[in-house]
Amino acid sequence: MQPSPLTPKPKASHDRGSRLLPSWLRAYSRDTGARDGIAALIVTLMLIPQSLAYAQLAGLPPQAGLYASIAPLLLYAMFGSSSALAVGPVAVISLMTAAALGGLDPALLLDDAARMQAAMALALISGLMLLLMGLLRLGFLASFLSHPVIAGFITASGLLIATGQLKTLLNVRAEGQDLPTLLPALIQQLPQTHGLTLAIGLAVLAWLVLSRRHLKPLLLRLGLGPRLADILSRAAPVVALIASTALSQALDWAGQGVKVVGSIPAGLPPLSLPSLDPTLWRELALPALLISIVGFVESVSVAQTLAAKRRERILPDRELIALGAGNVGAAFSGGYPVTGGFARSVVNFDAGARTPAAGVYTAGGILLAGLLLTPALYHLPQATLAATIIVAVLSLVDFSVLRRTWGYAKADFLAVAGTLLATLGLGVEPGLIVGVGISLALHLYRSSRPHIAEVGQVPGTESYRNVQRHAVLTREGLLGLRIDESLYFANARAVEDHINAAVAQHPELRHVVLQCSAINAIDASALESLEAIAHRLHEAGIALHLSEVKGPVMDRLQRSDFLQQMGGQVFLTHHQAVCTLGGEFRPSTPPAAAG
Amino acid sequence: MQPSPLTPKPKASHDRGSRLLPSWLRAYSRDTGARDGIAALIVTLMLIPQSLAYAQLAGLPPQAGLYASIAPLLLYAMFGSSSALAVGPVAVISLMTAAALGGLDPALLLDDAARMQAAMALALISGLMLLLMGLLRLGFLASFLSHPVIAGFITASGLLIATGQLKTLLNVRAEGQDLPTLLPALIQQLPQTHGLTLAIGLAVLAWLVLSRRHLKPLLLRLGLGPRLADILSRAAPVVALIASTALSQALDWAGQGVKVVGSIPAGLPPLSLPSLDPTLWRELALPALLISIVGFVESVSVAQTLAAKRRERILPDRELIALGAGNVGAAFSGGYPVTGGFARSVVNFDAGARTPAAGVYTAGGILLAGLLLTPALYHLPQATLAATIIVAVLSLVDFSVLRRTWGYAKADFLAVAGTLLATLGLGVEPGLIVGVGISLALHLYRSSRPHIAEVGQVPGTESYRNVQRHAVLTREGLLGLRIDESLYFANARAVEDHINAAVAQHPELRHVVLQCSAINAIDASALESLEAIAHRLHEAGIALHLSEVKGPVMDRLQRSDFLQQMGGQVFLTHHQAVCTLGGEFRPSTPPAAAG
Repeated sequence: MQPSPLTPKPKASHDRGSRLLPSWLRAYSRDTGARDGIAALIVTLMLIPQSLAYAQLAGLPPQAGLYASIAPLLLYAMFGSSSALAVGPVAVISLMTAAALGGLDPALLLDDAARMQAAMALALISGLMLLLMGLLRLGFLASFLSHPVIAGFITASGLLIATGQLKTLLNVRAEGQDLPTLLPALIQQLPQTHGLTLAIGLAVLAWLVLSRRHLKPLLLRLGLGPRLADILSRAAPVVALIASTALSQALDWAGQGVKVVGSIPAGLPPLSLPSLDPTLWRELALPALLISIVGFVESVSVAQTLAAKRRERILPDRELIALGAGNVGAAFSGGYPVTGGFARSVVNFDAGARTPAAGVYTAGGILLAGLLLTPALYHLPQATLAATIIVAVLSLVDFSVLRRTWGYAKADFLAVAGTLLATLGLGVEPGLIVGVGISLALHLYRSSRPHIAEVGQVPGTESYRNVQRHAVLTREGLLGLRIDESLYFANARAVEDHINAAVAQHPELRHVVLQCSAINAIDASALESLEAIAHRLHEAGIALHLSEVKGPVMDRLQRSDFLQQMGGQVFLTHHQAVCTLGGEFRPSTPPAAAG
Repeated sequence: MQPSPLTPKPKASHDRGSRLLPSWLRAYSRDTGARDGIAALIVTLMLIPQSLAYAQLAGLPPQAGLYASIAPLLLYAMFGSSSALAVGPVAVISLMTAAALGGLDPALLLDDAARMQAAMALALISGLMLLLMGLLRLGFLASFLSHPVIAGFITASGLLIATGQLKTLLNVRAEGQDLPTLLPALIQQLPQTHGLTLAIGLAVLAWLVLSRRHLKPLLLRLGLGPRLADILSRAAPVVALIASTALSQALDWAGQGVKVVGSIPAGLPPLSLPSLDPTLWRELALPALLISIVGFVESVSVAQTLAAKRRERILPDRELIALGAGNVGAAFSGGYPVTGGFARSVVNFDAGARTPAAGVYTAGGILLAGLLLTPALYHLPQATLAATIIVAVLSLVDFSVLRRTWGYAKADFLAVAGTLLATLGLGVEPGLIVGVGISLALHLYRSSRPHIAEVGQVPGTESYRNVQRHAVLTREGLLGLRIDESLYFANARAVEDHINAAVAQHPELRHVVLQCSAINAIDASALESLEAIAHRLHEAGIALHLSEVKGPVMDRLQRSDFLQQMGGQVFLTHHQAVCTLGGEFRPSTPPAAAG
């Protein structure tokens, strides 16, 4: 049997015994190693400024970002199912970390060390939750974050992050986890803007934006090879980092009031314990859950996008375990919550990473940076990092989804717009909860008012269709109804009302046949409604029948006594029911205007 | 055209202009008046002890129960759509009122007057919510309380109420809104039991239980007419009330430590203002919402049960308005939240009430009792009322639903059991919220893992069924899949995974046809998944087609560009698709063991 291109690769199906020794490692070649090495170099150059910047965004000391990029990368390489995913601090999770810490009782965060311990506890709780979800195979939970909710949330987060970084760019004080707090504070502080800081920030911003668009074509025109041009253009943020640090030191910007990163402890990530304070854990439980789910959804989407390009398969439950392990690792090595990042994974993939070993090399690169480079970062202006963040997150902002969902379905549009506004207006946690609430409520609202069609025979066929859309034949004394929804508590009463009303419109009715081809389940509430319907029809001298009941639904109905109580029959096809029960044909109903 | 028995009665369809003058009033006859009058007498006799008792259950002075039985009855008679529903204080809503007041900041309830004002505010908020829901036609919201959740909640409430009344029967102090608080407190206080109080309570309890079972047959055997026997046997609680009050006064039970009702202000219900304190309103908003929904669901169920017996129709939006008006009325006349009660409505109906005028007469009877009888109630032992409550609520307790749902569907069983345990363990409000959460989560869980069947042709027909359940024909190079669920965010990824896996099992595949007969909707998340599926299949050289897409789903797909991107075709029937695309027949697949 020739394997289909969609057959999972062997790496996903290796046997249980060797689970801890990934198959890619056993088949590792020199060529693969070289590709992985180059990818790792590029990603390392990208990650150093980004890790420092995201730690600043999370309100943590810069080294936390570096530390969070080491152990998680190693652990993901051991357990993950994607060959190109790069795990570490990312923008949205850093924002959510800041919001989680900002929402804590101030008595729990007396100093920077306590704050760091709380961030590590957040990573630990989130990691344990992810591991638990993986072990219990609860990956399906992530599907409750609908695409519209994620789209609205990510765009709003990008806007919130960019707005929040303005305070660093202006060198003013303005706190807040949502726009209604943040914006007035920023505007009020505008007169206190520090000119030199702003100038540095804008210069870095301009460099990053321009280099992103024009540097690679320029280098190619200057005659550099495509690979080198690629590496150099990706290193633009590192160049900004080096140049602004050097200028800052040479011109003593710190002395002129520019905020700089300051001293970062050099050395290996500390093997440290996160806080185990039960009060803190209780307060962090909900934020950790949201961080886990958002992180997992973001990471799996990235992994699946990349896997599709190489016809690999992502195993969601393995991903939960790998991300869980990564977060637990971050918690014990001075980091904070991490997940698979979009930008760095795409860069890793494009740069040619073939196996998780690329992640191991990247971790080594960052470890080296942490060991050797941190003293050199003392004079790095915080405004450089703020500009790095702003450029990174503005690519997350995408309003086109509003237009697309508006055209497709208003309910999805409402979910996007609601999540977007709630996140901007209330902050990330309430925004996410509101978004999930809206999408669930809209789903339930829709399925609570099912489409019910009266059906008739398409002349010359055994097919029965909506009398309002097709020219069909109906029979005296028989009403055929097709309910286009599974029957459950939210629509049980609506179905009851609809059937009563439909029956009331048809005098001299003898039989009602419910065509059940679109009914995938009937819960206990709906069963009671069906009993009530059958009872009322029976009292009115009308028999209730069912047709085209699906196997699983029939199995369940047979476990109740409804079929005996109903009185009528169950037919395999609707045509059979009509032939058995029907009276004279009635003149074909002319179809009404399509609707 | 002869009207069908299920046609709504004229009273439900009178024109807009005369909405405030109900049609039953224009056609009111002497005979109907006599029937209504007798029903009102019986209900009044039943309501006097019950109103006093439920006020005690709500933790309010006894007259609040009487007052809550006057204005609401009159207002419901004006606006309601049921001819037999009796509105007033009921057990579950009284318990929820006690829980709502018990959950308030003690600073808001400094004395009994403040407590009463808070109860009136609760009725006002709940009334306004019901009116708003009625005006916005949001009656469908009530359908989110599934039958299993209601069943579990009502049974648990009955148990909580009965347990709570034990403290009055024992004459000890024990507070608590849930069993884990209440039971230990009761057990600890057991040694303080007041013997005489317990004896009175048990005697009344025995009388009520025995009279409920044996009094009517006994009276009939003594030669009384059936109607008189009925009235007298329904008056058993009034007899208990009169007898225990008389004995209490004669033997000075109050002097021996038996708690009595004490002085009740005589006269008309006071025209009083509920509290308008915004802090209080904020704290009462959630309890008021839950009370509104539970009250509405209980009331509409009772009304529909009774209406079905007379082939009348209940208009849920009118019921919302009528109950809203009733609660607003209660709020301004010294009452507390009310709804349509099961027991009193059934008694009203059985006693022959023909029109809402019966409610007006009942209101008159209770008003008279409030004016004339209250001084006589001074010596009424509280234990008599506790026994009345216990007998009334034990009829709510019904564990058979656990057995029935266990047999029918485990998910429904979980919803009943979860609601029951959460209500007993955490109290009424958390119990209800947990119950709704469980039933929504189970519904979503089920629909997040849809049943997907590979289908083949039933030989000799144009019908396509599950290859695992039927002996069917399939074709080389063509895979037919029927997805038994609407596609939406919660199952989009699962469907994607399932199709990828199914395709991987079929080498040399050229076409995949999704039979969409059971797909009632496709949201934006699912559309993205379909695009991803089509894209992956296309890259593997396989075309994706759809068959039997429903009208509303097709309308929406045509608004997106999916049908162009998909590449394949859309067929009206699955048979057409197979005839157009299919290769050679393959040998009939033997059906596997039914499953």
